[in-house]
Amino acid sequence: MRYLALLLVILTFPAIADVQSKVVKYQDEETALTGYLYWDDAIKSPRPGILVIHEWWGLNDYARKRASLLAELGYVAFAADMYGTDKVTESPGQAEEWMREVTADVEGWRSRAALGLRQLQVSGLVDGDHLAAIGYCFGGASVLQMAYANANLKGVVSFHGALPAAPEEARGNIKPSILVLHGHADTFIAPEVVANFREKLDEAGADWEMNTYGGAVHGFTNPNAAKHGISNLRYDAKADKRSWARMQAFFAELFSD
Amino acid sequence: MRYLALLLVILTFPAIADVQSKVVKYQDEETALTGYLYWDDAIKSPRPGILVIHEWWGLNDYARKRASLLAELGYVAFAADMYGTDKVTESPGQAEEWMREVTADVEGWRSRAALGLRQLQVSGLVDGDHLAAIGYCFGGASVLQMAYANANLKGVVSFHGALPAAPEEARGNIKPSILVLHGHADTFIAPEVVANFREKLDEAGADWEMNTYGGAVHGFTNPNAAKHGISNLRYDAKADKRSWARMQAFFAELFSD
Repeated sequence: MRYLALLLVILTFPAIADVQSKVVKYQDEETALTGYLYWDDAIKSPRPGILVIHEWWGLNDYARKRASLLAELGYVAFAADMYGTDKVTESPGQAEEWMREVTADVEGWRSRAALGLRQLQVSGLVDGDHLAAIGYCFGGASVLQMAYANANLKGVVSFHGALPAAPEEARGNIKPSILVLHGHADTFIAPEVVANFREKLDEAGADWEMNTYGGAVHGFTNPNAAKHGISNLRYDAKADKRSWARMQAFFAELFSD
Repeated sequence: MRYLALLLVILTFPAIADVQSKVVKYQDEETALTGYLYWDDAIKSPRPGILVIHEWWGLNDYARKRASLLAELGYVAFAADMYGTDKVTESPGQAEEWMREVTADVEGWRSRAALGLRQLQVSGLVDGDHLAAIGYCFGGASVLQMAYANANLKGVVSFHGALPAAPEEARGNIKPSILVLHGHADTFIAPEVVANFREKLDEAGADWEMNTYGGAVHGFTNPNAAKHGISNLRYDAKADKRSWARMQAFFAELFSD
């Protein structure tokens, strides 16, 4: 069968990935930041770059794991630091505090995210016309802010992210395509927030798609989501798999030119 | 690059499809029906079967074209007839009348759709454990009804379909996975209908996903949608491409066992 034969080709494609990583120290005025760059050393030519922005916990192993997986897929990935070196926690209270420190100043929030993108751009590994950003939870909201600031990105992907509405001044000026991957049972995001988010994207004339997974809550891509004992945080294998596959198809579309 | 190499494999995969079709006459009590079966003659083993249900216009070339494309992808596809032989129109009034004749009796609606599925099952070409159904507009609502009736399907896909809510009696008993591909600007489907549709799917415990395309209206997959002069009917190339790709990934997941 044609599609089975194709599947076989995919499955047996030699695993040539030779993923490397390095620590990248950078600075946002007085704040010292530490990110991680991942790339496949078997690839010698410039390739698309993906910025990865962490959950509200800070830049922990989860965001780094996703960046590493992206490198296995052939991208250069940079797991950015939005809080500051070593600011990683498992306390929701602490996470919320750090998150609010960043999000309270939208311009500062966007420029810190842009500094992460900058690390990709100066890595010497990427094709600078083929950049995208993904983010989880707080990171999802962060990549949406980058789209609203019309960052030099082909697209952004939010996984169970907060959904800040596009501001008035973004109208007609959101070039990145937007893909939102959302758990329908996520009680952190009220239905009216979702409705307003969509309405504002339409008003802004953005290219957007939202995939909603029935039964999935916040954190559906993170196998450790439930360990915090918060009922709205739970892994969902099906939604995880579907959202990751959708992201890959989205990238294939964005980078096809 | 690994993913580019893979893309190349896909693009250069030899086009061996040898799509055949045949007219299938069948009967729903007194109503004579005429459907079309499509399959790739180069494939000799049983393969997944996909039922295709037409828009409210009746079984026209558009639904047949989709069935033919599915055969090119390696499936056996049956474009079912839900109205009766030669009941095809370009008049919205006539379309609505024929549609209402079918939908007024939910049991009759479901059993007529099941008769379409039956034609696939008796074709001698399909793997009877690997069946799915897709539908457009009225056809989208039809495949949802099949899911609510717990038809022998791995999954159903609605493209810009009407969104009937799952009935009480379907609770805990919807085995087919449900994928809904929806235009956010589709004024035929009110926001409260969408909200209720989702709520009832959750209550029923269904596995469902809904992809919403910003700016897309009804008929976004049909290049001829706008010819009827109805402002809510318009083709959207991006949403068409994304939804067709998402359907294929969904099938790959459904039929992976």
